[in-house]
Amino acid sequence: MLIVMDAAASAEDVRRVVETVQKLGLSAHPIPGAQRTAIGITGNRGAVEAAAFENLPGVAEVIPVSAPYKLVSREAKRENTVVSVGGVPVGGPRLAVVAGPCAIESEGQAIETGARVREAGATLYRGGAFKPRTSPYSFQGLGEEGLRILDKVKKETGLPTVTEVMDTETADLVAEHADCLQVGARNMQNFSLLRRLGRIRKPVLLKRGMSATIEELLLSAEYLLAEGNYDVILCERGVRTFADHTRNTLDLSAVPYVQRISHLPILVDPSHGTGKRQKVTPLSRAAVAVGADGLLIEVHPHPEQALSDGPQALLPEMFAELMKQVRQLAPVMGRTA
Amino acid sequence: MLIVMDAAASAEDVRRVVETVQKLGLSAHPIPGAQRTAIGITGNRGAVEAAAFENLPGVAEVIPVSAPYKLVSREAKRENTVVSVGGVPVGGPRLAVVAGPCAIESEGQAIETGARVREAGATLYRGGAFKPRTSPYSFQGLGEEGLRILDKVKKETGLPTVTEVMDTETADLVAEHADCLQVGARNMQNFSLLRRLGRIRKPVLLKRGMSATIEELLLSAEYLLAEGNYDVILCERGVRTFADHTRNTLDLSAVPYVQRISHLPILVDPSHGTGKRQKVTPLSRAAVAVGADGLLIEVHPHPEQALSDGPQALLPEMFAELMKQVRQLAPVMGRTA
Amino acid sequence: MLIVMDAAASAEDVRRVVETVQKLGLSAHPIPGAQRTAIGITGNRGAVEAAAFENLPGVAEVIPVSAPYKLVSREAKRENTVVSVGGVPVGGPRLAVVAGPCAIESEGQAIETGARVREAGATLYRGGAFKPRTSPYSFQGLGEEGLRILDKVKKETGLPTVTEVMDTETADLVAEHADCLQVGARNMQNFSLLRRLGRIRKPVLLKRGMSATIEELLLSAEYLLAEGNYDVILCERGVRTFADHTRNTLDLSAVPYVQRISHLPILVDPSHGTGKRQKVTPLSRAAVAVGADGLLIEVHPHPEQALSDGPQALLPEMFAELMKQVRQLAPVMGRTA
Amino acid sequence: MLIVMDAAASAEDVRRVVETVQKLGLSAHPIPGAQRTAIGITGNRGAVEAAAFENLPGVAEVIPVSAPYKLVSREAKRENTVVSVGGVPVGGPRLAVVAGPCAIESEGQAIETGARVREAGATLYRGGAFKPRTSPYSFQGLGEEGLRILDKVKKETGLPTVTEVMDTETADLVAEHADCLQVGARNMQNFSLLRRLGRIRKPVLLKRGMSATIEELLLSAEYLLAEGNYDVILCERGVRTFADHTRNTLDLSAVPYVQRISHLPILVDPSHGTGKRQKVTPLSRAAVAVGADGLLIEVHPHPEQALSDGPQALLPEMFAELMKQVRQLAPVMGRTA
Repeated sequence: MLIVMDAAASAEDVRRVVETVQKLGLSAHPIPGAQRTAIGITGNRGAVEAAAFENLPGVAEVIPVSAPYKLVSREAKRENTVVSVGGVPVGGPRLAVVAGPCAIESEGQAIETGARVREAGATLYRGGAFKPRTSPYSFQGLGEEGLRILDKVKKETGLPTVTEVMDTETADLVAEHADCLQVGARNMQNFSLLRRLGRIRKPVLLKRGMSATIEELLLSAEYLLAEGNYDVILCERGVRTFADHTRNTLDLSAVPYVQRISHLPILVDPSHGTGKRQKVTPLSRAAVAVGADGLLIEVHPHPEQALSDGPQALLPEMFAELMKQVRQLAPVMGRTA
Repeated sequence: MLIVMDAAASAEDVRRVVETVQKLGLSAHPIPGAQRTAIGITGNRGAVEAAAFENLPGVAEVIPVSAPYKLVSREAKRENTVVSVGGVPVGGPRLAVVAGPCAIESEGQAIETGARVREAGATLYRGGAFKPRTSPYSFQGLGEEGLRILDKVKKETGLPTVTEVMDTETADLVAEHADCLQVGARNMQNFSLLRRLGRIRKPVLLKRGMSATIEELLLSAEYLLAEGNYDVILCERGVRTFADHTRNTLDLSAVPYVQRISHLPILVDPSHGTGKRQKVTPLSRAAVAVGADGLLIEVHPHPEQALSDGPQALLPEMFAELMKQVRQLAPVMGRTA
Repeated sequence: MLIVMDAAASAEDVRRVVETVQKLGLSAHPIPGAQRTAIGITGNRGAVEAAAFENLPGVAEVIPVSAPYKLVSREAKRENTVVSVGGVPVGGPRLAVVAGPCAIESEGQAIETGARVREAGATLYRGGAFKPRTSPYSFQGLGEEGLRILDKVKKETGLPTVTEVMDTETADLVAEHADCLQVGARNMQNFSLLRRLGRIRKPVLLKRGMSATIEELLLSAEYLLAEGNYDVILCERGVRTFADHTRNTLDLSAVPYVQRISHLPILVDPSHGTGKRQKVTPLSRAAVAVGADGLLIEVHPHPEQALSDGPQALLPEMFAELMKQVRQLAPVMGRTA
Repeated sequence: MLIVMDAAASAEDVRRVVETVQKLGLSAHPIPGAQRTAIGITGNRGAVEAAAFENLPGVAEVIPVSAPYKLVSREAKRENTVVSVGGVPVGGPRLAVVAGPCAIESEGQAIETGARVREAGATLYRGGAFKPRTSPYSFQGLGEEGLRILDKVKKETGLPTVTEVMDTETADLVAEHADCLQVGARNMQNFSLLRRLGRIRKPVLLKRGMSATIEELLLSAEYLLAEGNYDVILCERGVRTFADHTRNTLDLSAVPYVQRISHLPILVDPSHGTGKRQKVTPLSRAAVAVGADGLLIEVHPHPEQALSDGPQALLPEMFAELMKQVRQLAPVMGRTA
């Protein structure tokens, strides 16, 4: 739990809060700031009741946290973070639309897709070179060859690129080619990888794990910030539930929740979030309406031939229609697209 | 599984499908229709692979169902159902906005809320007289007195009313007072109640159970239709998952999924779906953008005094702001509000 | 939260706890008992931190409850409750083994099954006359005819009977025939039904809902006790999760958890809990080893012809083998079978 | 899906199955074996109905798999795999009991715990040197110093050791010290790590991910076997669900399910599976009774001082009592302990 004191709170006010914390058998950690003091509480195993502190003199706000993320929190930084990916801002008034194939399969497929999504209004290109696959016998991506194709796509289309990084060995290599390093859902708690990416200082797109709470997502982001990398973009991509009409259950409430407690931008990936082509467009609209900072959309010119995730990829013309709808919705949200 | 034949399919085409089904060890039930024949498949324990049938001559569509809902399906009725609740259409171009307190607590509270939500643009009034409560020691509603207040709200505001019906004993009584009978999430599979409401012939608002699949929701609706009541409105209100930042996880993908396979209208309840006041407005926007036919919103003039679900009730002025945002979004969806 | 004072606690100790509660902005409700005082806390929305009270003088135990169940708790009654079902004790040293078909389909099937399960060592007979079915088109049970067959099974085999009651209309009828009334998972929060069964005063077997927390299960039991019916048997039957290798995920940790906080007996239903015949025996062993008071097992002489839940029913010879294994395990648990 | 032919099946039988597969629009991959042929089916997106093949001549068994694990399957190897961890067999008649602290905190703590668990009957020692922690601010383990202590524990107690490996960088280092490399739940789908461990050829203990299906667990194991490492031990450690009375929901049905379809041994970790000290012993009994090949138990001489997971660690005397109970149960299962 983090107790934030008023700017006008006295030293006596702070002392009183600290004592109250200690009476509860917990430890208080005053963190003096430029304008005001925050007091971290540790030692509790579950949640601490906010009511014990809310009415004490000088207390501005009580923020329940059962785990100590700090740098990612709004308390640490009031203003929204805008991450620049190869010059394209993510988190600002213009919606970031990251589009492209799940996996880069060939130069032709990659560049064709890039041209089509740029034309339709995408602001960033995505395409996997290293693919984490449930089965060892599935297509695992083109690897380094895929990264070279990614360079060409960028050169041809002008779109900065996002691609997944799967491990520490290839992190530097991937960072040489891509403008933003994606950490997939399965690696959200691969802490060694997070630490490494925290030191590489390229923007990171961190996807929520399949059964991760928002707190765990933010703590994984905290690993990156704690190493000095503040260019972190979060991504809701659906969680695993009993519901079987979609591949995952897209949890759009994560967006306003994250935006309230963290300054980091958050995108939504309705392609993985639903796993069904027909649902990508309606859920993209919903994501924009809920307030997301952008979208991650899988597009493939020939989804029936896709080597991975074909059933959820949009055709370029479907993506163009999606962008049309997004452009209509964006102004209602005070955004552009 | 339901196999729908082309209007132009020959008797021979149908025979071939039936044989293929039988070769798989399953039973085929041809259902001749006015324009075309559908063939139901039973005897399978799990899903049947659609690929076995999709390419046979004369097959128009293969609809995977592991349980035989029929009347609620788009196959049974192509056009959207529009349910009239006391003269207000639900499922048509105008969004249905059902607003009011979780529980009717007093005549004053009920009427005040009704006046405020009507003024802000609600089209229907909701208020609970019989309340299902997890604990026997919680406020259980005003009962019959609540129903009388409901009548007064309707008289004062002109808004048709929706209220929950908890059991077969009070079903007739509730039906005398309300324009639409709500079946709560906990009763979604109370089949005796569903059968009774199927015979009462008042519109029914059927909420998805906390861990119900869409198929189960539709099969519960099928109970109502099978008894002759076609005025059924579905409602997504969040499902129970591990995620703990909201009370339930609102599953907005249910909306396009239901709309594809069923002709029944579907509303979204972001109040129960999130359980948090701050998330009601963003998720209401998302519900409209995903294509829902309307919203169910809890409003209370003094939520801190509410006898149930206070933390998720909006203040009337917050509801007015929500309606303003909904009105901006509706045209993008080809709707009014 | 319930704070239990030492038998030796002074009035001053109690007063101090009450004050501490009030300082947290909550309400304290001292409940003086024969030997010691308990203090209920209300007004909190989430959990209250136990640490605030555990070290106060005179406090014996702090029991976190976010909802006020009282009569079902160990605090209200230290000793295990033993429920007599037609003379057969449930909750005592002998394991209760309730066996029989999911649904009574015919007199022959019912009696044959009864004879076989009695012979193998079952202590109670189960068989459904009124069946809650997801689809309105599935076999719904023989109804009253099924109850008459149940009487015959009891007469023939001497085994007291357990059968499901689905609604308030048929509750009295079912109670005339059966020795124990089962409330199914879908009706766990059918509060009108619970209240009615609370007044009927026949033993009730209450199954955990598909997505019910243990607290909700206990609060549903509280509905029964609050109406005066103390003969309540709980039943863990699996919960709904993403895991797809079984129909439900059997949550055996519920058993020791319930036994710690409640005095009511708890059975395990591995037939519904797994939905797969091959898993019933291993999970039955596990249920006995975890400390359950008994088992609920579906047995059918011809499962391939069963009108409901055939895939999970054991053949009589498989049930006999199961009982053999249970008899070997029971002594390790200080039980007989 | 894998279709296993009878040893006596003719080439004609195989050809007929292949044709049937192709008629369904899928691909058939005959895999001739020493004694009989198996036919893999690919190209299906969901499950294929087994009924299509079960009755064809020469078909022995139809094993539904929606993903192609092969080497881990019982089809690939009929006999149970017994993995030797530093000379101690895992998967044989003697239950493997892996016990020790969550994290190695000091030489004193580590050795004291080792001595106590060996004395009580543990067969392997566990202790973490590299600890994956949700928060970057939590104790992350002693690292290399922890590995050196692990060596001393082994020398002092004679117990072979199991410790977690978090990344590819430290994999070789960890492999130099430990007898078995544990892959934690968060890394179950860290495919780069799995591939590396597949090449190291030390036994691997692979824990099920928090929201992993059994199929995904087996496919992760397949990564190890596909690289040539056949010494793989699986571990059920609870999955994440809505249930809040335990930290995770221990899914004991995984044990008989895995044992039916795979030849690999499987342990149960009730410490993580429940997260509560009081439930470790009952769930350990249940794990033995369900048929697990052993247990993973956290033991700490001073759990209140533990730097990680204190609430779930057993005191040494509690572990000794647990072992006593396990020894009583083991013979019922035809095991020793």
